[in-house]
Amino acid sequence: MSFNTFGHMFRVTTWGESHGPAIGCTVDGCPPGIALTEADIQPWMEKRKPGTSKFTTQRKEADEVRILSGVFEGRTTGTPIQLMIENTDQRSKDYGDIAQAFRPGHADITYHQKYGVRDYRGGGRSSARETASRVAAGGVARAVLAQLLPGLRITGYMVQMGPHAIDRDKMDMAEIENNPFWVPSAEVAAHWADYLDGLRKSGSSVGAVIEVVASGVPAGLGAPLYAKLDSDLAAGMMSINAVKAVEIGDGMAAAALTGVDNADEIRMGPDGPEFLSNHAGGILGGISTGQPVVCRFAVKPTSSILTPRRTINTAGEEVDLITKGRHDPCVGIRAVPVGEAMMACILLDHLLMDRGQTGGQRGTIG
Amino acid sequence: MSFNTFGHMFRVTTWGESHGPAIGCTVDGCPPGIALTEADIQPWMEKRKPGTSKFTTQRKEADEVRILSGVFEGRTTGTPIQLMIENTDQRSKDYGDIAQAFRPGHADITYHQKYGVRDYRGGGRSSARETASRVAAGGVARAVLAQLLPGLRITGYMVQMGPHAIDRDKMDMAEIENNPFWVPSAEVAAHWADYLDGLRKSGSSVGAVIEVVASGVPAGLGAPLYAKLDSDLAAGMMSINAVKAVEIGDGMAAAALTGVDNADEIRMGPDGPEFLSNHAGGILGGISTGQPVVCRFAVKPTSSILTPRRTINTAGEEVDLITKGRHDPCVGIRAVPVGEAMMACILLDHLLMDRGQTGGQRGTIG
Amino acid sequence: MSFNTFGHMFRVTTWGESHGPAIGCTVDGCPPGIALTEADIQPWMEKRKPGTSKFTTQRKEADEVRILSGVFEGRTTGTPIQLMIENTDQRSKDYGDIAQAFRPGHADITYHQKYGVRDYRGGGRSSARETASRVAAGGVARAVLAQLLPGLRITGYMVQMGPHAIDRDKMDMAEIENNPFWVPSAEVAAHWADYLDGLRKSGSSVGAVIEVVASGVPAGLGAPLYAKLDSDLAAGMMSINAVKAVEIGDGMAAAALTGVDNADEIRMGPDGPEFLSNHAGGILGGISTGQPVVCRFAVKPTSSILTPRRTINTAGEEVDLITKGRHDPCVGIRAVPVGEAMMACILLDHLLMDRGQTGGQRGTIG
Amino acid sequence: MSFNTFGHMFRVTTWGESHGPAIGCTVDGCPPGIALTEADIQPWMEKRKPGTSKFTTQRKEADEVRILSGVFEGRTTGTPIQLMIENTDQRSKDYGDIAQAFRPGHADITYHQKYGVRDYRGGGRSSARETASRVAAGGVARAVLAQLLPGLRITGYMVQMGPHAIDRDKMDMAEIENNPFWVPSAEVAAHWADYLDGLRKSGSSVGAVIEVVASGVPAGLGAPLYAKLDSDLAAGMMSINAVKAVEIGDGMAAAALTGVDNADEIRMGPDGPEFLSNHAGGILGGISTGQPVVCRFAVKPTSSILTPRRTINTAGEEVDLITKGRHDPCVGIRAVPVGEAMMACILLDHLLMDRGQTGGQRGTIG
Repeated sequence: MSFNTFGHMFRVTTWGESHGPAIGCTVDGCPPGIALTEADIQPWMEKRKPGTSKFTTQRKEADEVRILSGVFEGRTTGTPIQLMIENTDQRSKDYGDIAQAFRPGHADITYHQKYGVRDYRGGGRSSARETASRVAAGGVARAVLAQLLPGLRITGYMVQMGPHAIDRDKMDMAEIENNPFWVPSAEVAAHWADYLDGLRKSGSSVGAVIEVVASGVPAGLGAPLYAKLDSDLAAGMMSINAVKAVEIGDGMAAAALTGVDNADEIRMGPDGPEFLSNHAGGILGGISTGQPVVCRFAVKPTSSILTPRRTINTAGEEVDLITKGRHDPCVGIRAVPVGEAMMACILLDHLLMDRGQTGGQRGTIG
Repeated sequence: MSFNTFGHMFRVTTWGESHGPAIGCTVDGCPPGIALTEADIQPWMEKRKPGTSKFTTQRKEADEVRILSGVFEGRTTGTPIQLMIENTDQRSKDYGDIAQAFRPGHADITYHQKYGVRDYRGGGRSSARETASRVAAGGVARAVLAQLLPGLRITGYMVQMGPHAIDRDKMDMAEIENNPFWVPSAEVAAHWADYLDGLRKSGSSVGAVIEVVASGVPAGLGAPLYAKLDSDLAAGMMSINAVKAVEIGDGMAAAALTGVDNADEIRMGPDGPEFLSNHAGGILGGISTGQPVVCRFAVKPTSSILTPRRTINTAGEEVDLITKGRHDPCVGIRAVPVGEAMMACILLDHLLMDRGQTGGQRGTIG
Repeated sequence: MSFNTFGHMFRVTTWGESHGPAIGCTVDGCPPGIALTEADIQPWMEKRKPGTSKFTTQRKEADEVRILSGVFEGRTTGTPIQLMIENTDQRSKDYGDIAQAFRPGHADITYHQKYGVRDYRGGGRSSARETASRVAAGGVARAVLAQLLPGLRITGYMVQMGPHAIDRDKMDMAEIENNPFWVPSAEVAAHWADYLDGLRKSGSSVGAVIEVVASGVPAGLGAPLYAKLDSDLAAGMMSINAVKAVEIGDGMAAAALTGVDNADEIRMGPDGPEFLSNHAGGILGGISTGQPVVCRFAVKPTSSILTPRRTINTAGEEVDLITKGRHDPCVGIRAVPVGEAMMACILLDHLLMDRGQTGGQRGTIG
Repeated sequence: MSFNTFGHMFRVTTWGESHGPAIGCTVDGCPPGIALTEADIQPWMEKRKPGTSKFTTQRKEADEVRILSGVFEGRTTGTPIQLMIENTDQRSKDYGDIAQAFRPGHADITYHQKYGVRDYRGGGRSSARETASRVAAGGVARAVLAQLLPGLRITGYMVQMGPHAIDRDKMDMAEIENNPFWVPSAEVAAHWADYLDGLRKSGSSVGAVIEVVASGVPAGLGAPLYAKLDSDLAAGMMSINAVKAVEIGDGMAAAALTGVDNADEIRMGPDGPEFLSNHAGGILGGISTGQPVVCRFAVKPTSSILTPRRTINTAGEEVDLITKGRHDPCVGIRAVPVGEAMMACILLDHLLMDRGQTGGQRGTIG
C-alpha cells in the first residue's frame, strides 16, 4: 500500500473528492479474459449507495459506474480498468460552516495542517464517498474470483451497533439482506432501528462493529512476513474511513486465552486437514489455513453531528460548531459492503501473488 | 509492505531463520550523516533478547548486532545498512518431534501447504526470532529520530496478561523498567508473576495486550488513503508473530460511543491547537494530530506448549503432540520492544515521506 | 515502475485505449499548494497532439485535458490528480483488417499471445495515443518544478531522421519551435520535409533519434543503485512506444573512448565545481552532477505502413497485410514532447525522493 | 526498482561497500522447492571475479558465496535467501589519495554532494564490487530458470572494445569461453590483447560494448506499459556501473531504418509463428515474441587511471590526480557476467509476474 494505491499485483488506485465532478479508480493487474460489464459491478454499488433508508445520508447518488478502459467486447484485456462514478448530488452550500472551522473527530484539521490547502466540501478527499471506488474495484475482483475460486463466499454483516452486540448463538445469516443494517437477526434489526432513530433525532451518531467472513479460501494464500494475509487485511480495513481497530479470528479476546484453549486442534478429514475450532480466523503465520477467514473492524461514530461541539477555526478562534448537511447517523452501516470489497480485492491479490511465486502448487498431506 | 520488506522510504528487509547461522536485515533509505554504532542499537536488543527471566524462553542468545555496511567512521552514509545477528544457541535436536507433525496454532501447517518444504527447526522463518531484526532496525530508526525529532518518546508496555487487565487509573510509568513484564505497576507485576508461573508449570501459556504510545509526534504525518499512519501501524503490528488485533486510540471500544462522546473537542493553546481528549489516538483521517499516537495490539498465547494437543502429521496421520524445547509462556512479553521498534520505523518512514511530498511545511492556524 | 504506474514518490498511473471513450492518468504524490489549472497543461498537449502537420497522423483530436480531482480553487491539494482526455475522432472501421491479422513490428501478436484477448482498434492499449497521458502528467510535473526549481529548463529536439543526422556544429536552438520536426536547424528541417514527404508517399515510414536536455538540475538527484537517475531515465524513455535504445551523455560512443579522453575534468568556479566537458551527460554514479542532463533515444519507424508485408492471422493463415488508417510516417516527431514529459516527471520524482531522504542538504565543497 | 532493490516479484536487495567486511544481497520471492547450494552459484562468481588475467584488477578475492538463509536441506523454502560474500583483500591504504580529491568520471563528487559523507575506500558503495552480489543473485535465478524454462540459454559476450568492433559475419560462439574478453572470435581476442596491453601500460583505459542474448524465452513475458520487458532491461543494465547506453534489437540503428526494412515479417512454422528477421530484438510492445531477446550496452572506460587529470578536492582546491591502486583497464570485461545475471533475474521476475496475472495461459494462433 502506498499513497492512493493498494494491492501488490491486483492494484487499485483511487481518486476523487466528495464534491468534485467524479470519483473513480484504476484497477491494474487484472487477469485477462474475465467476463465483465457494468452490470457485474452495479449490484455491489447498490448495497453501499446513500439514501436507501432513513438510516443513511439523504444524499441521492445514482452511483453508476462506467468502465472507461480495460474491457473489450465484454472481457477484461489485462490492461488497466478505469472505473468512473460521476457525482450528481453535490450541495456544496451545505459546507460553508466548515470551510474555516474544523469538525472535532474529523480529518479537517489534519488535512489542513499537512497540506495547507484542502477541498472542504463534504470532506473532500477524506470523505467516505471515496469508498464507492473501493466497492467498484471489489466488483471487478469478485468477477475474477468467481472464475478462479468458484467456491469462495464473502459475507459481511454488522455484529454491534453502539453498545448493542448481537447474540452470536442467535445469528441467522438469511436475515442479513432483509434489513438496512445487514445484521443477521430480524429481532436485533427491529431493536436497532428504534435505537438509531432516537440517536439520529437527538443530533448524535453511533459506532459499530462489522464482521466479514470469507469461506472457500484455499490454504496457502499469504506472503510472510510483511505481506501476510492478516497484515494486508489489517491495513486494508484500517484504511476505511472511521475504522479504529481490526481483529482477525478471536482478535483482542485472544489475549485472554491460554495456549491450551487457543489451539485449533487438527484432525484428518476426507478432503484433507480439518480444524476443530477457528480461533485463528483462518490464518496462521500470515497464510490461510483453508478455514473461513474471519475479520472484524470497529467503526467510530460519525463525526458530523448536529450537537454543538467546541472547536477552533483556521484563524485560531475558538468556536462552537454543529455540522449540518446530510450525514449517516451510523456510518458503520455502509461500511459493510466496503469491508466485503476490501476482502475481495485482498484475497484476489494474494491468489495472484501465490500463483506467481509457487505456481499454485501445494505441499501434500497424507 | 511486500514479502519481506516493510516501509516506503525507510525500508527494512529482513532475512533468516531461527536455527540458521544468522538472521538480519537491510535498512535502506536511511538519511545520511547520522551518528550510529553497534552500541546505539544493542540496548534495544537487550530488551528483547531471550533468557533474561524465567518468564521468557531459556534459549541463550547474545543477540549481538554487527553493522556490515552503510556506516563509515561512525556515521550513516545514506547507503544500505546491513545488520547481522549470529545465532549461537541453536539446539535443533529439540525439534525432531515437529519435523513431521504440525503444532496446532502454529504456522507449521500453512508453511508446509504453501511452500511444500520448510525449515522446521524452531519454526524456521515463522519463528519470533525474526523480530530481533526488527528491533535492530528500530535502533537505527531511533538514532535518526533522535536527531530529526528530538522531542519524540516511544513507550511500550503491557496492559493485559490473559484475563488480567491493569487498572488504568493506577498506572505508574516509572515502574515499566522495573519488572520483567514491562507493566506500569509494581503491584500488577507481582500478581502476574505468580499467575504466569502457575501457567508455565501447568504446561500452558497465555496471551497479552501491548500498548505503544508515541508522544512528541508532530501534526501532519501520514499519507492517505492507503499509507495512512494508522493503516501502516495496523499492518506493521499485525505482522508481528502471534498478533491477532490492532487498535488505534479507543479501538474496538469506539464502536460503543456516540458521536457526542467520541468528539475530541479542540481549544487553542499557547502553541497551537489542543485537544480535550484523545479518543482518536492521535490520528485523524490517517494523519497525525500532534497528540500522542496510541496503538494497542493483542498477542495470542504461545502455541508451543507442553500440554498434549490433537493434530496430524505430513503423512496425514492423527497424532497427539506436546512441544518440548524452550518456549516463552507469554510471548507477549517480548513483543513489547518489538512493538516499539515497529512504531519507530513507521514514524520515521512517514517523516521522510512527508518531507518528500510537502517539504515539511505545515498549514497555519491562527 | 510496475505495470501501469511509474515513479517512486511522484507516481503516474495511466489508463485507456486508443479507441475507447477516453484515456487519462492519475498523478499521485504531488506536492500541495501548487498553482495548477487545465491551462497550465494544455500547451504541452498541443505540442504532441496529432493532425498539426502533414507529417503526423491525420486523426483529429482536441486532446483537451480535464482535471477531475486533486485541485481545489486553482491549487493542488496533495491528493491524487485525475487527468482525463476524451477520445473524439475514433474511426474503428479503419481497423477491420487488423482485427485478425498481426501487423509486423507491432505489438498485435504479443498482446494476443499474452492476454488471449485485445482491443485491436488502433492498437488499443499499445497505441502511442497513451503518451498523451504522459504529456498531461508532465504538465503537472512542470508546474511543480517551476516553483521548486525555477532555473530548470527541459528541451527536446530531433537530432536524426532516418539516416540523416544533424551537424552538431550548426545547431540553432532558436529554430526548434519553427518547424514540424522540432529540429534545431532551418536548413535541416527543409531537407527532412522533402525526405519524409517522399517516404510517406511511397507508403513507408522512418525512424528518428530524439535528444532531451535538462539544464539547471542541481547536483545530488538520483538514488543509487536501482533507482539511479540514469536507470530511471532509461526505463522511462524505453517505455515510450517504439523506442529501441536509450543513451546518457556520450551513450554508445563512450565505448570507443579511452579513460583519458572520457574524464570530465573538474575546476573550481565561482559557484562551485565546474566540469570542462560533459561526456557523462550530467550523471555520475546515478546521481546528477549539476551539469545538463543529456538523454537520447532512438525511435523505430512506424510499423503501420501501406507497403504490403508478409504476416499471419489468428487462424494461423499466412497473409500479406497493408495497414490503412491514419498513421505517422515518423512517429519520432511526436515523441519529442513525450520525452520531455518523461524527463520532467523523473526529475521531480527524484527531487522529492532526495528531500525525503536527505532533507535537501548537500555536502559542501570549499 | 527503488533504491537498493530491483525486481517486482523476484526481488534482489543488495548491500555492502568495496572495502567493508562483506557485501551481499537478499533474494526475496524465490519459488520454493528449487535445488540450490553454494556450488550452483559459485561458477558464475568465478566468471566475474577479479584477478583472473592481467586484463582485470589484480585485487585477489575468493568471492565465495555463503547462503545464510532461505535454503533448507538443499532446497529453496520460498523465504528470503541471504547471500554473503566476505571481502578479503582490501588495501585501504591505496585510497589515501582519493579520500579528499574527486576522481574525474567517478561517482566520488556526486556521492559527496548528495550524502555529505561517503566511504571513499575503493569507491565504497559506488564500486563495481557491488556487482558480485548481482552475479550471486543471478545464480539463484538461473537455478530457478533451469527448472521452469529448461530451454532457456543466456549468453553474454563483448562485441566492441574501444573503437574495435567485431565483424558480425565472423562470430564463433564456441570461442567465447576461450579468451579473457568473452569475445566470440579467437582472432579478435588476440588483437584486443595487444591493444589493451598497450593501453594499460600507457596508464589509460577503454570502454566496451557487451551483448547479452537470451534464447528460449517464451512469448508473452513483459508487463506493459511501465514494466515492459525492455524497460526493465534498460533500467537493469543502465544500473550497472559505468554503463551509458542500452539497446534492444537494432537499438540506435533502428532510427535509420524505414518501416519496410524494419518489419520483422511473420510466417507460420511447425511450432507456431516464425519471424523472418529480428530487428525487434525479441520484444514488441514490451512483451517477448518468442525470438531471442537481444540486449546491448555500452560501458565507459574505467575512470581510475594513472594518467594525471585535473580535478578539485573537498576543500575546493584544484589539484592534478592520478589514481593508483588496482583497477581494470577495461571494466567492460567483467560486465559480461553481470549483464548475464541481470538478464536472468529480469526474465525470471517477468515469468513469475506473468503466471501471477495470466496463470501462464497463452492466446492461441491457428
